[in-house]
Amino acid sequence: MIRTVVILGAGNVAYHLTRALLQNTVDVRQIYNRTLEKAKEIGETTNIKYTDKISELEKADLYIIASSDDAIEEISYHIPFNNTLVVHTSGSQPMSILKGDYRKGVFYPMQTFSKEAYLQYDEIPFFVEAQNENDLEDLYQLGKRVSGKAYKIDSAKRLKMHISAVMVNNFTNHLYTLAADLCEKNEIPFEVFHPLIIETTEKIMKIPPYKAQTGPARRGDERVVHTHLENIENDNVREIYRLLSQSITKMYND
Amino acid sequence: MIRTVVILGAGNVAYHLTRALLQNTVDVRQIYNRTLEKAKEIGETTNIKYTDKISELEKADLYIIASSDDAIEEISYHIPFNNTLVVHTSGSQPMSILKGDYRKGVFYPMQTFSKEAYLQYDEIPFFVEAQNENDLEDLYQLGKRVSGKAYKIDSAKRLKMHISAVMVNNFTNHLYTLAADLCEKNEIPFEVFHPLIIETTEKIMKIPPYKAQTGPARRGDERVVHTHLENIENDNVREIYRLLSQSITKMYND
Repeated sequence: MIRTVVILGAGNVAYHLTRALLQNTVDVRQIYNRTLEKAKEIGETTNIKYTDKISELEKADLYIIASSDDAIEEISYHIPFNNTLVVHTSGSQPMSILKGDYRKGVFYPMQTFSKEAYLQYDEIPFFVEAQNENDLEDLYQLGKRVSGKAYKIDSAKRLKMHISAVMVNNFTNHLYTLAADLCEKNEIPFEVFHPLIIETTEKIMKIPPYKAQTGPARRGDERVVHTHLENIENDNVREIYRLLSQSITKMYND
Repeated sequence: MIRTVVILGAGNVAYHLTRALLQNTVDVRQIYNRTLEKAKEIGETTNIKYTDKISELEKADLYIIASSDDAIEEISYHIPFNNTLVVHTSGSQPMSILKGDYRKGVFYPMQTFSKEAYLQYDEIPFFVEAQNENDLEDLYQLGKRVSGKAYKIDSAKRLKMHISAVMVNNFTNHLYTLAADLCEKNEIPFEVFHPLIIETTEKIMKIPPYKAQTGPARRGDERVVHTHLENIENDNVREIYRLLSQSITKMYND
């Protein structure tokens, strides 16, 4: 069982993960970050010791590297313990990116993290992986303890989950941004779309998105699709409209 | 002021519009539909007279053609009154599609309508248009009465709103569908994405979507984008991923 944890990193994932662990009475011993100021910020908010010297890391059952993807490998080299478990939190990096003689794993929380946001930690699914069965079970139980939702999957599957997360989160948000641009150009407040956006997401909590699909492309209404394409001024937006409509048309009308 | 209304059409828009008007004590006199069975279905649920004979339309202040886009013109020909107001409810059709000697307008409720869904009608924005100022004001007041949210816009602007609605509703739903497919292939329940989807939409109720953007393309993390592209098996999905990532990268990193 994992009793003590050290967090490496001081970004949004590190911040929320620290809070989530503390809320579930996991003993977070220390926060490490390359720049002291950011470690101090989280340390002082959460009342946890912090350091910018990796040589001063304390002993713990688990070291969670919650840094940006491109810092994981570098940090992983410098963890000065062997008989311990080290994990990263990235959706897109394989477990093998960790370089050291310790036991390795992954503890990936699938959520979009902003520092300002209030998050329901008990809603965030964790995807866990480990080199050995004991560690895998321990990480699984830790995920369960924080959110009730934990899944054991390997690096290849986790990558697929991360790709899906990008699609449902980053890409939908970008579509909202493009729509907000169009609103602004037409002097309509973007808020008019809020009910439609809410209804769209609430619907797929009840029925599978495949069945929830509506709209001109779904109906095979080529006339409307064509009219829309003709009336989009921005080349980039037109291309996105064309490709997504084509994808929907193929799925339902072929 | 609009006191009496006749609904033409018996699909999802007609059904919900009828209910919304009734809830706000507008006198819906009659429902017309080309096939009697569907008119009967709504008529009996809402306790309103129905007919499949356009020659038997009753007198009213307002005729709302809430049919599918391709039936609007045909129905509009046959309305046997001149001194009245006739509108359609389409986001993508111009007011000029209405053919008759009556006064013309548009009454477009921006929402995704499924018969099963329970909808908060007071949340649905109406976009209204009319040939003359009096009718415009009357439609605006009717929209306000139903939802509190009404906007006077012309056909060109309404088309832009409809394009935006397709993007935030139909296209995001399609992204959910593609993600659900990936989940199924990896034996992960799609429900794991619900918290992420909820957080994504709740965030943009508080901050503009432009500022809410996260993810590899937003960070300019070409390595992750490349890894994802390499690991998407479906050509269509890969092309969607590529195009949307490129659009995000351009917006934030150029």
